[in-house]
Amino acid sequence: MSSTIGEKIKISVFGESHGKAIGVVVDGLPTGMKINMDKVLHEMKRRAPGNDKTATPRKEADFPEILSGVVDNVLTGAPLCAIIHNNNTKSKDYSDIKRCPRPGHSDYPAYVKYNGFNDIAGGGHFSGRITAPIVFAGAVCKQLLEEKGIKVTAHINSIGNVYDEEFNPCNIDDETIDRLLNSSFPLIDESKEESMRKVVADASADKDSVGGTIECGVVGVKAGIGEPMFDGIEGRIAKAVFGIPAMKGIEFGKGFDLAEMRGSESNDNFRYDENGNVYTKTNNCGGILGGITNGMPIVFKVAVKPTPSIAQKQETINLETKENDILEIKGRHDPCIVLRAVPVIEAITAITILDLLS
Amino acid sequence: MSSTIGEKIKISVFGESHGKAIGVVVDGLPTGMKINMDKVLHEMKRRAPGNDKTATPRKEADFPEILSGVVDNVLTGAPLCAIIHNNNTKSKDYSDIKRCPRPGHSDYPAYVKYNGFNDIAGGGHFSGRITAPIVFAGAVCKQLLEEKGIKVTAHINSIGNVYDEEFNPCNIDDETIDRLLNSSFPLIDESKEESMRKVVADASADKDSVGGTIECGVVGVKAGIGEPMFDGIEGRIAKAVFGIPAMKGIEFGKGFDLAEMRGSESNDNFRYDENGNVYTKTNNCGGILGGITNGMPIVFKVAVKPTPSIAQKQETINLETKENDILEIKGRHDPCIVLRAVPVIEAITAITILDLLS
Amino acid sequence: MSSTIGEKIKISVFGESHGKAIGVVVDGLPTGMKINMDKVLHEMKRRAPGNDKTATPRKEADFPEILSGVVDNVLTGAPLCAIIHNNNTKSKDYSDIKRCPRPGHSDYPAYVKYNGFNDIAGGGHFSGRITAPIVFAGAVCKQLLEEKGIKVTAHINSIGNVYDEEFNPCNIDDETIDRLLNSSFPLIDESKEESMRKVVADASADKDSVGGTIECGVVGVKAGIGEPMFDGIEGRIAKAVFGIPAMKGIEFGKGFDLAEMRGSESNDNFRYDENGNVYTKTNNCGGILGGITNGMPIVFKVAVKPTPSIAQKQETINLETKENDILEIKGRHDPCIVLRAVPVIEAITAITILDLLS
Amino acid sequence: MSSTIGEKIKISVFGESHGKAIGVVVDGLPTGMKINMDKVLHEMKRRAPGNDKTATPRKEADFPEILSGVVDNVLTGAPLCAIIHNNNTKSKDYSDIKRCPRPGHSDYPAYVKYNGFNDIAGGGHFSGRITAPIVFAGAVCKQLLEEKGIKVTAHINSIGNVYDEEFNPCNIDDETIDRLLNSSFPLIDESKEESMRKVVADASADKDSVGGTIECGVVGVKAGIGEPMFDGIEGRIAKAVFGIPAMKGIEFGKGFDLAEMRGSESNDNFRYDENGNVYTKTNNCGGILGGITNGMPIVFKVAVKPTPSIAQKQETINLETKENDILEIKGRHDPCIVLRAVPVIEAITAITILDLLS
Repeated sequence: MSSTIGEKIKISVFGESHGKAIGVVVDGLPTGMKINMDKVLHEMKRRAPGNDKTATPRKEADFPEILSGVVDNVLTGAPLCAIIHNNNTKSKDYSDIKRCPRPGHSDYPAYVKYNGFNDIAGGGHFSGRITAPIVFAGAVCKQLLEEKGIKVTAHINSIGNVYDEEFNPCNIDDETIDRLLNSSFPLIDESKEESMRKVVADASADKDSVGGTIECGVVGVKAGIGEPMFDGIEGRIAKAVFGIPAMKGIEFGKGFDLAEMRGSESNDNFRYDENGNVYTKTNNCGGILGGITNGMPIVFKVAVKPTPSIAQKQETINLETKENDILEIKGRHDPCIVLRAVPVIEAITAITILDLLS
Repeated sequence: MSSTIGEKIKISVFGESHGKAIGVVVDGLPTGMKINMDKVLHEMKRRAPGNDKTATPRKEADFPEILSGVVDNVLTGAPLCAIIHNNNTKSKDYSDIKRCPRPGHSDYPAYVKYNGFNDIAGGGHFSGRITAPIVFAGAVCKQLLEEKGIKVTAHINSIGNVYDEEFNPCNIDDETIDRLLNSSFPLIDESKEESMRKVVADASADKDSVGGTIECGVVGVKAGIGEPMFDGIEGRIAKAVFGIPAMKGIEFGKGFDLAEMRGSESNDNFRYDENGNVYTKTNNCGGILGGITNGMPIVFKVAVKPTPSIAQKQETINLETKENDILEIKGRHDPCIVLRAVPVIEAITAITILDLLS
Repeated sequence: MSSTIGEKIKISVFGESHGKAIGVVVDGLPTGMKINMDKVLHEMKRRAPGNDKTATPRKEADFPEILSGVVDNVLTGAPLCAIIHNNNTKSKDYSDIKRCPRPGHSDYPAYVKYNGFNDIAGGGHFSGRITAPIVFAGAVCKQLLEEKGIKVTAHINSIGNVYDEEFNPCNIDDETIDRLLNSSFPLIDESKEESMRKVVADASADKDSVGGTIECGVVGVKAGIGEPMFDGIEGRIAKAVFGIPAMKGIEFGKGFDLAEMRGSESNDNFRYDENGNVYTKTNNCGGILGGITNGMPIVFKVAVKPTPSIAQKQETINLETKENDILEIKGRHDPCIVLRAVPVIEAITAITILDLLS
Repeated sequence: MSSTIGEKIKISVFGESHGKAIGVVVDGLPTGMKINMDKVLHEMKRRAPGNDKTATPRKEADFPEILSGVVDNVLTGAPLCAIIHNNNTKSKDYSDIKRCPRPGHSDYPAYVKYNGFNDIAGGGHFSGRITAPIVFAGAVCKQLLEEKGIKVTAHINSIGNVYDEEFNPCNIDDETIDRLLNSSFPLIDESKEESMRKVVADASADKDSVGGTIECGVVGVKAGIGEPMFDGIEGRIAKAVFGIPAMKGIEFGKGFDLAEMRGSESNDNFRYDENGNVYTKTNNCGGILGGITNGMPIVFKVAVKPTPSIAQKQETINLETKENDILEIKGRHDPCIVLRAVPVIEAITAITILDLLS
């Protein structure tokens, strides 16, 4: 129940970090499009570890094997299933974290919920690795959206206290989108890369980690899409985004900044352009009013918490002795997952938008 | 499809601001509890207009008539339906806003989506008035939660740039909860009331409005409740909250502040208390890890945008002439809806939590 | 959860036989159509009691009051809610059936499920009366379907051992549909009315009741509608139909007769007609293959059990004394509900088909 | 959307007859049970082809590979995914049936729905082969149900016009259940095997096929399980069963026979047994009243149409020439699928019942 989302396009994610394979079933896709596997692999590489110093140097061969739903990579309309084999999963000893739940991780609530039977190795089903099949599904949905003239793009909005510029919420142009897609460190203002990398390197040097924010934009969705109340676009996107590990906040348009504004400032005034098309001069609402698109770009930001796995010793409990204890997490972990989360946020957004339009 | 939410406890909201009646059907409630109507009416009064200067002086007799689901106010297990008759709905002339969509409102996207057939009077189904039946449903759910030892409470976290204190996220005590419930202006630090009121009064004097934030806490939910990934508690609450008009952001625990933290600072360390119960010294995660409760209070904040209806002249389009135009909204409107939204956030949260536990 | 069905068109039914009102919320309807209330009332009269000798002589003024979702009876796109007030509900004494569950009724399983708190008066939420709002919702959906050239019609297929002719499954013509709609006793072969009435009268004279079957046809649905596997049309219709009290079986096309056929006999061969349209010479599959329409009429039959309320003394248990007991049900009850169920089956089918097409 | 079913236990089926693999994701299972793989393989062998003369002599090595959701075959609570590799799928030439849709198959409606892009080889996602992963999922659910004292069993109720005896609906004993589970031709009255086999052999000799019926029983479900109206047990089971290829009818308890009965005959009278437990002397309702269990065995029958693939020449259309044509289906096909469908009906029922109880 938990790992499934969507109405018309329904995805069901499965797998654990150190199991045989992880994967996804995507049900409800339209027929006839040939999947561009190069583009899919490009998206997966953006998420994969080992590609950047801010991320873990672990290598994962995230090559998706499509089991169903295609003939010669053309979508047939039947459920699309792809799996990614887990290599290199000879589990080291996880008995310490089985005993001592890692602070900031789901270990303890999962221990209670699953009566201790959950797979702890590598985080099991809660691992960030589970986002790889989501990126696969998102890459396919992105291609289907492009056929409708819709593009989904995201960038690092901040790492620690270093902030990128924001999108121009009224106009996210193709050049920007293409540049971000092909960047190894997607920023609006590329001059911020160095200071962001320093924040990560400093944290890493301190056996610590750091959080950040991601801004995501969707262009090309016409006005009038969505539903009022509980099936509004904000709610749909939020539910999907909070399905991604480490996300702790979401805001649409100016979001929390709206709370300090006055109405005369926050209201986006409608105007006709020279071609008789409706637009708004500002886009403080992030393209959504009453849960429904107004035709402007959909824009939102998400908060990514610092990687909870840090190399410092941490206080925690010992579930065996029932006493307080100290835990030292072994292994290599991303000091910052914001970079790798960028394509994941794009992916889950693309899936959600395609579902909305189906 | 849009106005329904929930899995085991399902609510379906109906009605328009100026129709015959608004109401709600709540399906899936347990049996046997006698609804305390005094408590229900108290909750509804907290939301009702005309009770405070920050709100509109319109009077609404928000008295719910229960049509089904009870015998002598005891829940029978059949769907509970309550309606609130709309009095005083002799519509004034809405032809101007039918022609000229109000900035910041759903008028324009709704016009596109519904081909102009949507009921525009008073905002129709998009009106904030539609939250009255949600408060009814929430008041019943709150009583059912209290039987399980669970309490939901909220306060004004900010209006404009004036901020209340935050909850102690590790311990929201009964005294605070009771005080907030019975306060006409619920604040942790009551000394902030005057400056907050001034912010609202200033905006009102300028024919303007102002936004704010609300903080909500839930105490008494055990560890291990919720699901991983797409059915996590954050996603469930977020989807429900974005069903409430004017909400533009949500963050759990420290939320966006986590993005500037390091892992060593944001991780909440687990400890045993003297009775062998697990707790965390801090609660930066807002009581949720991996989508599942850890037994600490669930804490989140929402961003409320300024009331879009302001008395100033605003630029907008004219859907008849297809030219740019100027709109002046008539009638009285809340210069700030934060106060009235407090019980609504509590209500939708209570409904969501009860659904999760059912 | 129980009283809600549908994906895009979602209905939520509420009310008890002797409560204040029964009603329905229909969410997801398109905009712009003006509801023809004469047609709605005609459908409701077909279901209402007191119109025929086979039915109970109780009078019910089943007049639906629309609370929301319309302006001047034109659909706005907001949830449509209609209620029917229960008059004449001064409950007689139900203590005997509270004590002694009626055989064939839900009294006993409901007693267990709801811990005795369910409303027993008149059957409560399990009463056949709850189908009145379904007929209202169905009447609206029928009008929306007619705009798409789709008609839903049904007739009494049998009462006891007297059988009507079946539809010509390859061609259900408008004349037949109109005649059935306006008939007080809808039959293909009207000569069967007398013997059917005699079966009912005989049962009634014996303080007994009798069952029957209903055949339903849907014309005008194009080929290619529906989904494979668990969202196939048979499954969708079946789930909806079993939501109607007293339905115990459903078969599509030749249904159970197919089980005795050979493939060469049961297969419907495809052919082109003179205009190049695809048809089948026979329609043993009831218009559905692999869960998807093939363009022929959708045809199915349902089994209606005899009214469980009979005036004879019956053996049952006494939940107070925990001993076996004898129950004599008072009041007047339909000796046969097949006639009144005909418009209900049409209604729930219309709702389901409109949902499929939305 | 189509290949997913369930509320708390959600299954998502994927794969095509001649694709790389078929499989299933089962989300929402409880933790801690060790899957007995011998029992799973026994169930899968019951469904597999090549085991009986009534079935196709094709050999399939239906060995499920579990990708996720277990550690050492113990359920972890994460989604359980199992796949079955398709060997031997070097597709012969399917161009004839691509051109000429097979009567009685989904080829034509699928062609329309999927614009010709659906995978036709071996029936693609519509193939009966897709039931193999359902049997896997059902085998796991059966083991979980047994821990609750619940058993699901089925037998061949008829093939052609030869009928087995029915279950004693008031008492399906363990001996019968065990015998049926281990029988290569499950019948209550084993003396019917010979004449049933003759019906199949005769059809086969005539290049034809034959249908039948299956009766299924569930014992051990307590009274009070299920929901009224649209979430009743009949509707839930029916929706699941119609997800299985070739099913065209379902009836609960006496089903269509009830339509010819009188109420005095059909009503099941409640009684206390010597231990104070409630039972009914008859079980005409199939254990379900008002959508809710009454504590007696749940009993239902399904109608299985004759295998549509027959070796005789058949009339059909040619989608290329747009003219009428003649098709001769090559390859070997089951002359009767009733035997192999028995464990599939058990499986889908077990999944549905476990979902209801979760």
